[in-house]
Formats: sequence, C-alpha cells, structure tokens
Amino acid sequence: MTGQYFQDVSRIIFNPDAEVDDTLCFKFYNATEVILGRPMEEWLRFSVCFWHSFRGTGADPFGQATIRRSWDDGSETMENYKRRLEAGFEFFTKLGVKYWTFHDRDISPEGPTLAMTNRNLDEMTDLALNLQRQTGIQLLWNTCNLFAHPRYANGAATNPNAHVVAYAAAQVKKGLEIGRKLGAQNFVFWGGREGYNSLLNTDLDIEMSNMANFLRMALVYKKKIGFEGQLLIEPKPKEPTRHQYDYDAQTVTSFLRQFNLQNDFKLNIEPNHTTLAGHGYEHDIVMASTLGMLGSIDANTGSPDLGWDTDQFPMDIRACTAVMLQVIRQDGVQPGGLNFDAKVRRESTNAKDLFIAHIGAMDSFARGLRNAAKIIEDGIMSKHLKARYISFESGFGLKIATGHADLQECEEYVHQQGEPEAISGQQEHCEAIFNRYL
Amino acid sequence: MTGQYFQDVSRIIFNPDAEVDDTLCFKFYNATEVILGRPMEEWLRFSVCFWHSFRGTGADPFGQATIRRSWDDGSETMENYKRRLEAGFEFFTKLGVKYWTFHDRDISPEGPTLAMTNRNLDEMTDLALNLQRQTGIQLLWNTCNLFAHPRYANGAATNPNAHVVAYAAAQVKKGLEIGRKLGAQNFVFWGGREGYNSLLNTDLDIEMSNMANFLRMALVYKKKIGFEGQLLIEPKPKEPTRHQYDYDAQTVTSFLRQFNLQNDFKLNIEPNHTTLAGHGYEHDIVMASTLGMLGSIDANTGSPDLGWDTDQFPMDIRACTAVMLQVIRQDGVQPGGLNFDAKVRRESTNAKDLFIAHIGAMDSFARGLRNAAKIIEDGIMSKHLKARYISFESGFGLKIATGHADLQECEEYVHQQGEPEAISGQQEHCEAIFNRYL
Amino acid sequence: MTGQYFQDVSRIIFNPDAEVDDTLCFKFYNATEVILGRPMEEWLRFSVCFWHSFRGTGADPFGQATIRRSWDDGSETMENYKRRLEAGFEFFTKLGVKYWTFHDRDISPEGPTLAMTNRNLDEMTDLALNLQRQTGIQLLWNTCNLFAHPRYANGAATNPNAHVVAYAAAQVKKGLEIGRKLGAQNFVFWGGREGYNSLLNTDLDIEMSNMANFLRMALVYKKKIGFEGQLLIEPKPKEPTRHQYDYDAQTVTSFLRQFNLQNDFKLNIEPNHTTLAGHGYEHDIVMASTLGMLGSIDANTGSPDLGWDTDQFPMDIRACTAVMLQVIRQDGVQPGGLNFDAKVRRESTNAKDLFIAHIGAMDSFARGLRNAAKIIEDGIMSKHLKARYISFESGFGLKIATGHADLQECEEYVHQQGEPEAISGQQEHCEAIFNRYL
Amino acid sequence: MTGQYFQDVSRIIFNPDAEVDDTLCFKFYNATEVILGRPMEEWLRFSVCFWHSFRGTGADPFGQATIRRSWDDGSETMENYKRRLEAGFEFFTKLGVKYWTFHDRDISPEGPTLAMTNRNLDEMTDLALNLQRQTGIQLLWNTCNLFAHPRYANGAATNPNAHVVAYAAAQVKKGLEIGRKLGAQNFVFWGGREGYNSLLNTDLDIEMSNMANFLRMALVYKKKIGFEGQLLIEPKPKEPTRHQYDYDAQTVTSFLRQFNLQNDFKLNIEPNHTTLAGHGYEHDIVMASTLGMLGSIDANTGSPDLGWDTDQFPMDIRACTAVMLQVIRQDGVQPGGLNFDAKVRRESTNAKDLFIAHIGAMDSFARGLRNAAKIIEDGIMSKHLKARYISFESGFGLKIATGHADLQECEEYVHQQGEPEAISGQQEHCEAIFNRYL
Repeated sequence: MTGQYFQDVSRIIFNPDAEVDDTLCFKFYNATEVILGRPMEEWLRFSVCFWHSFRGTGADPFGQATIRRSWDDGSETMENYKRRLEAGFEFFTKLGVKYWTFHDRDISPEGPTLAMTNRNLDEMTDLALNLQRQTGIQLLWNTCNLFAHPRYANGAATNPNAHVVAYAAAQVKKGLEIGRKLGAQNFVFWGGREGYNSLLNTDLDIEMSNMANFLRMALVYKKKIGFEGQLLIEPKPKEPTRHQYDYDAQTVTSFLRQFNLQNDFKLNIEPNHTTLAGHGYEHDIVMASTLGMLGSIDANTGSPDLGWDTDQFPMDIRACTAVMLQVIRQDGVQPGGLNFDAKVRRESTNAKDLFIAHIGAMDSFARGLRNAAKIIEDGIMSKHLKARYISFESGFGLKIATGHADLQECEEYVHQQGEPEAISGQQEHCEAIFNRYL
Repeated sequence: MTGQYFQDVSRIIFNPDAEVDDTLCFKFYNATEVILGRPMEEWLRFSVCFWHSFRGTGADPFGQATIRRSWDDGSETMENYKRRLEAGFEFFTKLGVKYWTFHDRDISPEGPTLAMTNRNLDEMTDLALNLQRQTGIQLLWNTCNLFAHPRYANGAATNPNAHVVAYAAAQVKKGLEIGRKLGAQNFVFWGGREGYNSLLNTDLDIEMSNMANFLRMALVYKKKIGFEGQLLIEPKPKEPTRHQYDYDAQTVTSFLRQFNLQNDFKLNIEPNHTTLAGHGYEHDIVMASTLGMLGSIDANTGSPDLGWDTDQFPMDIRACTAVMLQVIRQDGVQPGGLNFDAKVRRESTNAKDLFIAHIGAMDSFARGLRNAAKIIEDGIMSKHLKARYISFESGFGLKIATGHADLQECEEYVHQQGEPEAISGQQEHCEAIFNRYL
Repeated sequence: MTGQYFQDVSRIIFNPDAEVDDTLCFKFYNATEVILGRPMEEWLRFSVCFWHSFRGTGADPFGQATIRRSWDDGSETMENYKRRLEAGFEFFTKLGVKYWTFHDRDISPEGPTLAMTNRNLDEMTDLALNLQRQTGIQLLWNTCNLFAHPRYANGAATNPNAHVVAYAAAQVKKGLEIGRKLGAQNFVFWGGREGYNSLLNTDLDIEMSNMANFLRMALVYKKKIGFEGQLLIEPKPKEPTRHQYDYDAQTVTSFLRQFNLQNDFKLNIEPNHTTLAGHGYEHDIVMASTLGMLGSIDANTGSPDLGWDTDQFPMDIRACTAVMLQVIRQDGVQPGGLNFDAKVRRESTNAKDLFIAHIGAMDSFARGLRNAAKIIEDGIMSKHLKARYISFESGFGLKIATGHADLQECEEYVHQQGEPEAISGQQEHCEAIFNRYL
Repeated sequence: MTGQYFQDVSRIIFNPDAEVDDTLCFKFYNATEVILGRPMEEWLRFSVCFWHSFRGTGADPFGQATIRRSWDDGSETMENYKRRLEAGFEFFTKLGVKYWTFHDRDISPEGPTLAMTNRNLDEMTDLALNLQRQTGIQLLWNTCNLFAHPRYANGAATNPNAHVVAYAAAQVKKGLEIGRKLGAQNFVFWGGREGYNSLLNTDLDIEMSNMANFLRMALVYKKKIGFEGQLLIEPKPKEPTRHQYDYDAQTVTSFLRQFNLQNDFKLNIEPNHTTLAGHGYEHDIVMASTLGMLGSIDANTGSPDLGWDTDQFPMDIRACTAVMLQVIRQDGVQPGGLNFDAKVRRESTNAKDLFIAHIGAMDSFARGLRNAAKIIEDGIMSKHLKARYISFESGFGLKIATGHADLQECEEYVHQQGEPEAISGQQEHCEAIFNRYL
C-alpha cells in the first residue's frame, strides 16, 4: 500500500498515556496483548464494513450527500470503483484491523445484463484478492445486496414475481462464488425487503415458504462448490419493510426450525436491530448464544430514543462489556467477528472522523473485553449465578430439571414441604458488582 | 338466575333502530343471524373474562380501587366469592354471551396450605358447575394464576428455586382437573413472570429448559386424566417482566419446536400484546393462523401511544374487520373463541359501564364480521391477491415454489429472460378497496 | 391543460354507485355538496404536495428510485423542471383539488450561485403563476428547503456557523418573495435540521436564540414586502435530527412565547409527526386548536408500529372523523388547508396509484367530515361533554373556574360538603356513541 | 436513633479498597471530599424518598406485595405509621444522606373526614420534626398525593367536578403548611391524574385553565403563610393517564408562560419520565437548565426497552456523568437535590437490598461527579464547544446572534461570501473524548 489517500493520518499506536484529546491513539486496544490466553485481536475479530465507510455519502431521506472523499469522483466507472477499494485497504491497514466485509454491489457496478454485471465482479474481485494478498487483510464475510435495486422493491426471495426470485437466486449464486474465491469466512443473508408493508396485499404462506426454498438452494450450491464459509442470517424487525420476516434471533430460529435449516445457518446479530425489536441491547447476543446460534456480530449501536436504524459506532462501555462477557462465555465468535456496521454521522465530514470513530469503537470494545475478562477471572458473578440455581443440581430439583418429574410428584412434594421460602433476586446487588468492573 | 344484581339494566336486545345514545342495545350483533352459513354467535364465540369484570377494582400502580359493586363486600370469605360468581353468571346471561373464562385464584381464595386452597376450589367449582348447568353458559377456558402470589416473584416454571417450580406444577395439576370438571374447551398458559428483569442474574438455558419440562408435565397429565381441552400459550413480550420468554407468536412457536411440543399447543393471541411486541394490531393473528397455530383470541386493544397493557375494549371497526377476515379464512377459531380480556377504565365506575363496554365491543366485532363476510363473498380482494402471486402457479415459478429449482437454473433463467418487469404493489389500491367495506 | 400526461386516467367523478373495485371514482367526496352550511371543498381545502407526488422517486435509505414518470427524464434541466410542473397542474386539475404546496427546491434547481439559483426560481415561478391562472389552482403554501443541501447538515437557522445561518436567511427572503408573487395563503417553516444529534457538541442556548432571531427576521421582512400569507411552523419531534427543537405543538408554542412570537405564527400540524412524538393521532390537532394555534394540517398518517415518518395517505375513517370534528369546532382551518403530505409507497409504481391514493384519502376525509357534521348536528356528544363540566358553571365551581377562589375557601368548602361523590368518566359510553357515527 | 431495625447492616463507610462483592461499602462516594471547591455532599444533595423505600411493597399490576419489613405490620394504625417513620430515619442516618422526601399520605393515614386526616398529619409531622431535629436530616421536599385516592380518578386540579378540585386545593393547603413546619426546601406538584384518557370526554380548555388557577391559588397561599420553599412541577408524559398535561420540560414551561407563572415555579426533572417522553436520558435536565428552569432532580432510570415507569436506581456511569456535567454548569441544583425516586425490584426482598441499591446509585453519581469535574477542569470539551460557535462572537455572526441583522443583509452577505465551507460536526470525536473520562 502506498498510503496515498490517508497521508495526513499518522500511524495508529497503542498508547495508554495518550492525551485525552488524542483520539487518534488507541488507549485500550492493544492487538497482541494476551487476555485470557488469547491475543486481543483474536477475541476482537474487528472488521471494517465497506459500504458505510467507503460507499456512504451521508445522504439520508431528507438530505443529499455531504461526504466527499479525495479518491472518489462519484462516477460509475471501474476506475473509481478500483480507487475506492484501494483506499479501503489502505484504511484497513493503517487502522490495524484484519477483516473487511462487503455487499456485491458495493465493490462493483451493475451492468446492462447479469452477465456483464458478473464480469465486473470478476474484475473487481481479482483486484480485491490481490489487495488481500498484499495486505494480509481477510474477508470476514460478503453478502448480496438484494434490496437496493428497484427490481427488489417487493422483495427478493419473497417477491410475488417468480422472475425476481430467480434473479435474486442468480445473484446469490455469484455471491457464493466470489465468497469462495476471496476465502470469505462467512456469507450473510440480510432480508431487508423480505417482509411486508401491508397484510392486505401479502400472502405470508407463499412468501415464507419461498424464502425457505431460496435458502435451501443457496445451501445446496454452497456445498456443491465447496465454499466453506459459515452461512449467517441477520435479523432485523423492520425498516425498510414495515415487518421483516427475520424479526429477531428467536423468530429466525423458529423459521429455520420450521424448514429444518437450523443446523446449516447461524445468526449475525446487530444490537441496533435488537433494540428496534424492543429488546435490551445485548438480548439477542445472549439469546442467540444460548440457543447455540450466535455466529457473528455487527458491532454498532442506535439511540434508544429513535425508532430507526442509525448504525452508530458503539461507544458504550457497559454495553461492550455485556457483549464481550457472552462472547467469552461461548469461547469467541470465530469464524465470525465484530463487524463495524456503523457509519460516521453525515455531519462528520472529515476523513479523520473515519479513523476517530473506528478507534473510539475499538477502544470501547477493548475496555469491554478487559472488563469482561476480569469478571470471568474473579468468578464472583458466576458464583452468584450458580448459587441462584443450585436447587436444580440435586434432589427433586434435579428430577424436575432433567424432565423426570410429573405433576403428581410435584403436588406431593408441596404437600410435604409446604410454602417455598422467599429468596431475593438481588438485581441491584448484581448491578452494583457489575459496575465495579466498569 | 334471579337477576338481583343488575335489576336496573333492561334486557339487552338486538335493535338496529336504537338511538345513537342507547348504547345498551345491540345495533349490529344479532346472535342468530346467519353469516356465511353460520349464526353470528358461532363465528363470534364471545367470552366474558371473570378477572377484569368481576375481580377488577380499578386499582392501578398509582391509585387505589375505584370500583365498588353491590354484591362485593371486599372480604375474602367464601360467601363473597360465591356472590361474585352468581353476579357473573347473571351478567353473562343478560349480556347474551355463551362463554366465560377465569384464573383459579379469581374464583376461589388461597388457604393456608395447598390442600386447603384446593378444597376451596372444589367448593367454588361445584357452584360454577351448577351455574353453568342452570344457564347454559360454558367455560371457554380456565388458567392458573402463576404470577400474582409473592412466591412467583422470580418466576413459576422458570423460578430459580425448584421448590417454586414444584408449587406451580401442583397448581397446574389442579387447574387441569377443574378444567376437566367444568368442561373447559381450552386451558391457557400465560407466563407473566416467565422471563427476566436482568440478564445479570439469569441463566436463560436452565430457565427455558425448565419451562419446556413444565409444559410437558402438563401435557402428560392432561392426557392421563382425559382432559380434552386444547392447550394454549398466550404470548406477551414484556410486562410485568422486562422480557417475557413467550414474546410473540413466532417466538413461542420457536420454543415449542425446539422442545418438540408444537403439535400439542396452540396460541391464544391478544392484540394488545401484539402491539407491545412492536407489530401491527392483527399481525400475530395472521401470523399464528398462517403457521396453523391460532387457537383462540383475547379480544381487546391498547392505545398505540402507550407502552403498557391497557386491556381496553376493542372498538375499532377496521381492526375488528381485519381480525374476522383471518378468522373466516381459517374457518373459525373453535374450540377457541373471542375472550374479552378487557376492563372498563377505572373511571368507569357504574355497573352500567360494564354492559356498555361489552355491547360496544360485541357490536364492533359484529360489524367486523359483516364487513369481512362481504369481503369474502365479493372475492375482489382475494382475486387481487391471487393475481399477485400467479407466477408461482406454473412454469419456472412453480418449480421454485415447490423447491425443485437450483441456483444454476435460476441463473440460466435470468440469462434468458433478462430483467423482470416492474409490477406495482398497489397498497393504496388495496387500502381503498378495504375501506369501502367499512 | 392539454392533459397529455394522464391520458389513460378517465376524468374523476363523484359516483356513489361506483363498484367497490373502482377506486378511481369518488364515492363520498362531492366538492359542492353543502355540509353544515358550506360546500365540502371549503371545509376540506385539499392540497397536493409537489415534492412527494412530483419529486418523489421511491428512493429510501436502503433502495434506489423505483418510480419513473413519462414526463420526467431525471435531468436537472429547466425543461425537465417545467414538464414536471405542467404534469403537476394537470394532475391537480384532473383530481379536482384547488390547492398545491411546494418547497423552493422542488420546482427549481440550484445554480452555482445564489443569484443564479434565484433567477431559476424567477423563471419557474413565472410558469407556476401562469399555470395557476390557467387552472384556477391556488398556492396553499410554499416553504424553503433548508435541510437537504449539505450546507445545512448541521442546521440552518441553528447552524453553528453564522455563514450558513445567513445563507438560510437569504433563502427565506426569496421564499417569502415568491410566496407573495404566487399569492400563497401561508408560508411554512419546517426545521428538519434545527435540533441536535448529540448534546456533546451542542449549545442549546445559542441555537434556540438564533432560531428565534431567524424567525423574527422573516416576520419583519414579510411585513416589509406586504406578504399577507399566514406564517406557520410545523412541529416534528425527530428525524432526520435526533431531537428537533419544534418537538410538538406545545413545545413550539413554548418557544414562541419565550421569544414573544406567539401572535405572528401558527402551527401546521402533521399527525404522523404527532404520533412520532408519542401522542395519539389527533392530539396535536386538538391541542393546537385549543391553544388557538392550529393554522393548517398536513393530512397523512404513519403506522403506529413504526418509529419513523412514513407519510402514508390517510385512510382511517375514525382518525379523519376526529380531525374534522376539531376543524368544524374551530370553524375551519382557512386560510390553512388539508395538505396531503403523503407519498405513494415505493412499490406503487403506476401513475394510476397516484390518483387512487389521493382519491382514497379524499374519500376518507369526506367520510370524516360527514361523520363529524352528524355528530355536531345531533349534539349528543357535546351535550355529554357539557354535562360533565356543569359544576363549573355556577356556585363555588364558577368561582374556582374564574380564578376567584383561594385555598382557605376550598378547605372550608370541603369541611362543609365532605367527600365528593364518585362520577363515572363513561369513556366506553363515549366510544360506543362515537362508533355509531362511523 | 437506637438503630433497632437495621442492626445487621454495619455502618456504611467510604472504602476505596472494598472488595468487589462488598457492595455495602462506598467505593467512590466520600461526602466530605472536596470537588471543584465544594464537598461532594453539597454537589450531590442526595435524598431518600419515603414512598418507595418505606411504603413500597413490591405490588405491581400483576402481583401482590412481596416485601415485608420487620417494623411494618401492614396495619393502618398510627403506631405502624410511626414505626415506619422511625425506621426511615434510622435508614437515612446509617446511609449517610442528609435529605428525605415524602407525599402527605405516605406518612399519615386518611381519616373519615378531612379534619381528621389533617389531625393525623399534625401528629405525624410532630414526630417527623422531632426526628429531623435528632438526626439533622432535612426535608428536601414534600408533596401531596393527588392521584391515589378514588376521588381523584378523573383528575385533581383538572377534575370535571369542582368539588374534587376544591378537595385537592384543601389538601395542598395543608401540604404547604406542613412543608413550612418541617422546613421543606421545595414543594413538588406531580399531576399524575392531570391529563386525559380519551379526548372524547375531555374539555382541554377548561381543564388546563383550572390547572393554572389551582397553581395560582397555591402560590398565593405559599406567600401568605411565608413558606419559603421553591415550588416545583414534575413533568411526566403519561402513566397513569394516557396523556399528562405536564408532558416534559418544554411543555410545562409553555403552560407556565401561557398563564404567567414561569417566574414562580421551577421543574423537578426525572429522567425515567424524560425517556418515556421520547427524549434521551439527560435531555430534560439540559433543556430545563438551559431555560433556567431546572430546580431539582429525581435521580432514577428506566429500561429503554420498556414503555412504563420502572423507577430503577440509577447505575449508569455515563448517564450520571452527563447529568452532573449540567449540574456543575449551573453551579448546583440547590435548593433542589438528587432525590432517589427509585425502588428496589419487587424480587429484591432483603432489607440489605435497600442499602445496596442506594449505595450503588450514590457511588454511580459520585463517579459521575468526579468524571464531570475532570471534564470541566480539563476544559477540552468546552473549548471544542466554544470553537464550534466562534463565528457568532464577532462580525456578521455577532449581528445575527444579537438580533440586529435582517434578511436583506443576509442575502447581501451571501452574494459577497458565496457558499459556506463544510465543517465537520465531529460527534464521534466528542464521544471518544467523553469516553476517556468515564
């Protein structure tokens, strides 16, 4: 990398003595420092997403593009696409992350026919492969954009027109092929238009059945071509669609179980989507992990007072600690990672802001990891938790917990033992202990 | 029934010429009128819930009881419980509904031991059985209150203390027995405390596994005693618990599938819970029905600007039409029904308000039924819907819809057919047509 | 009007016998029919907004444009802007509305300098004036787009950079001038970027003070040039900004009173903004009207389960009735009107959908007007309301209501009169009566 | 204080070396430590609220009381009320706070007449005065409970029945008298029932006017008796009422300005109410402070995923820092304070939980104070903020900011200066800096 696009940004360093205002130094993230037997960079498999950081312009429903980059002339030429990709790899390298992610249409323009579109993709992925080799950056995951083009207005896999479903399937075919080519560790499905805006014009039964068939076709083809990446579905409850079928972790799991796909897909959880679904920030991380379905994380945040996806950089230490606590509990999210599905605010128009935002988020997660590791090491919180459920480890409790009791025995037990004693839930105690690690 | 408690309320009649202000006459509901080949009362299996209408006092988190009834001296004596039950049956009869519902603790007080509690239940259900026989009123469903007593503060089936789980199980045993005794057509589980307030003190894995074991014990016992009622789970996303495991229709279905219980339980959908889960009013009705899981309906509404369960009487004609449209589509909800899980506002302190609220809601659903029947009969909306998905009925679309296509064929199809044409979703058209039936 | 762009749409007519499926006929709206002494078109001063219907493309944060119109080649040429304007006036005329609304940038492109931008505006408003004269269509209001251009990313009147504030002021100057030129009956301020995204980089005091100065400059200039339109502020709580200063009706009123501007501005209330602020649909209509501040209405709706502005066509009869009830109570909203700040869904890609959506909404409001008029004429609801507050019309109640009582007298009154009697609020009764008019 | 009720709780101490699990030691709060020239206890005028901590039972809309205290036999006798008060003062003393707050009905039972109710209050406030003198604990504020008794179901000051308004007024008269007697530093109005549940039975105009008259009567009487406490209104948007008139800080300010009461009342801001109104946690603190209206703070929190008031103990360091930053900026909230309007969860049934919850919250605010003080001392954030608005400190910007510019000058300025330069809003930069202080 010649480093031509970010010349004014000095190399990022780990510097715990950094001045408060020097937000271009890591103060907490130190890639090689070993935490719980593993370097930080292995717990925190950070990934930069290409769409927000290299295709985002700051446009929103009420406003035009605000962000201009020196390497991007706004044209749809292959040259411009290539410059963007080179700038991206320069950024990943200077920032010091090891992974990137993209949608097919982020890195390569559509042509007049699918064949020409795919030729563009071939050319661009040649360059990407080259850049990956030069820099050592790897592809955490790629995905297909099945929501932006007008043909997908009424859905992709769930479109009422079979022709569109076929088109989306063809696009996924190519997506899996380039995933294999680039060594993607995962492949993501985000069904932004798979849902409904009105029940009056929707047949849920057909649409959900078609969605399952669609995923099954992808699964078959993945195996056929020997693509070894993990398949991930990313839940989101709504937006752009009024109701998205992949509402949240349990809804997707329900769907996968209905169609017997639960062993071949895992989930990519994005907390900003979780909160839009009405849950607490880390709910879907913990729920998916408990169900054995947590495959990867889109590390971002929203504002709890807003009802749409703002994709902000995660900066809340408490939240990062809660996430990392679960990640450690399941021994990491590999082959998934922590993808920054986050964009600088449209008012943050300096190239420097792009670094600051990522560094701030990486430092927040590094603090989260350090805190969570300390919680795990001390063992105080897990000791409390274990004690709370101790009654299921022996005696009649064990019988209940293992499914060997029946209602008559339960009644008999109560006739003998009488009223249970009141036991405090100690929520504030747990919160206070947790706080001491922050 | 001597009719001693509601003497001032004249017999309710169907009267399409009723003055606007005479909200004590039905203007739209006519039990015996045949709609789509069935009397209205068979489509609209209305049920009065005992807890709101005969145990509700108007107390709320910020205020004391406001509602006093002539038959209720507020005491915990069996006499008082019996007077309430008699008043209830007088009300059901005068109103002209055929079903009622109750929690065990609504109709009978707890005693110092479970055995004494159960003896109270025996005595009270003897009376209930007698009243049912006298009046012809039937039991739509009963349920166990596993959330109000302090022993259930930390959950019932999901309590961290096995002793409490056993207690809840013993209570459900009795609940199934009285369900059988009273000929309940269904038995409902609502897990108000089955969830968490903080993830810091919660083990999701143990709790959800215990919940499944609990339901399985109930299922086994139900079969053992030959209780033929349908088992129903009622989803609610939150309140009183921060997160309730039975979040919504798909979440419960996911859970049932995980533990292989999906063939033995159906859902009791309450729209006020659906909206709290972030969905549109009729979403869970339609989704549950599509999944083959719609067993019964708690007919009520909330205010969309409020974040808690207000259990208001359903008065919105559009919403009632949408619900009845789906009910007709699945050929009725029997053996379930439309239970008014709704309470008069705490400011509505007159006994007359109790009649007006139920009549208003029954008239709203009667309008909904008439509208929906007209929509079905005309067939215009279903013709539109069928046309929208016509591409899956033959050719390559049929191949996709039946799971016989693969990605290569899809790609080939697109190479041949090119770009799909743009087809309008016509949402406003559907809304405008729907409106003409209201 | 030659009617060249909508040739396939037959003339819209009032036709109560229209088939259900013929959503291109009005079934309820009849412009000249007299309701409560006034033709419907005078109660329902419908306006088509130019931006959604003639500049909207269906693009959303996740997708590209879906809507293509025969008259729009997508170019930034003056010819294209002119064709759009002509198509608009053809649409207004065929639809049969009397008013339109626009932002400055909707009808005319920005040039390289403000002077050239303003020359474009001169040319386009010459055409608009001509079209208004030809068709008799009038301008309900115009407004300045102070939110889309990147210069306004950090606010317009509340921008931290004085240069931007000056720019916005210059733009408003021109806006008022073209308002006068086109005989606008109102001029609207919507402060989409007047607010904050983070309190960390915001000085509320400076920003709100600058906003007041900005409005005062506009007021002074309006008087100076003799523009007689009413000035309106449109509240919105959030989106695009995290917090918008003009949160809701009372917040704006508070602001206006703080800066002594309350006599020179009224409010343009949009129900989709009201619900985003956490209120019921008609709350801000009723509140603004009660405060004497209701100037005009942006007639639209959102989905209560969504947390962003969807600007849907208002199709809910109950909601339209509630709005028109208040409009009749304040004897109309003239010189304001009912502006359809609503867009066809991005999936509704046919030109015909544009007609159907407007006709559906106009029919809904016509039903609302008819219902509300019947409610007013019958007088039953107002009689109930008056009876509820009767105690303030005489005796000690009158003394309290007129501010002539003191605490000692109140205490004395209670010592004499004792405990007040309980009086039912009769909410369900009111709902049931209201329903009978729907 | 003999300390008889909390004997098992060792004296609370400041102990920075406390073990993580020892949540009965302060680790951050140190009353006498001087921060920015003032002891912590003067910045953090903590107050324990009597209702949650000594009248709360854990009952909720779905469950019975769970919390039993050794000193409380649940009876309505004066002896029981007195024991509770003594236990309260023992708790305040052991915890080391200097203030308490209460509603009239918390500390004294209603009698059969107002006169007897007031005699009870006289007796109880004699005891309270005595306990205050013994312990040095002071009364931060008292308030009247105008929402729990059934007579207030339809409102207190805004009740449609003048008799009820008079009753509420008489109650406030006594409330002000006991405030004076006990040396209350403030007196609070929280209008839990001042609002509407349905617009169909509500006359907003009469109700809001009556509310103003009511407040004016209180103001007159306050002056008449020489009560020197500050009058505070506590905003809340909803719950128990569907819409509460005192929606948020700006709404109340609007109301006060409308009735010319803005100089005699300030606001008591509760963040859990702020978030229910759709704002960010600290919004109303900062807004009220900016408007010169911040009088006191109810220090608590909710869960952002819940739509009702949970009154949890504030444990979020980031939120506490943001609040304290504004408190320092306005040089403290005296004579107001930080009242813990928070309750232990109903599952937290141990007396010890009461200590742990308060200590956890006090430590959180102590961390917030320390962080905020460091931010102020460093001056980096304020320097950034000042720089952002520098353009208004001189030249044409100053002219705009001081209200001396007009639209023509602005236009002229733009003609000369052209397009403003784009300046980054640097939100992530500010967030990253802020994080370094946490």
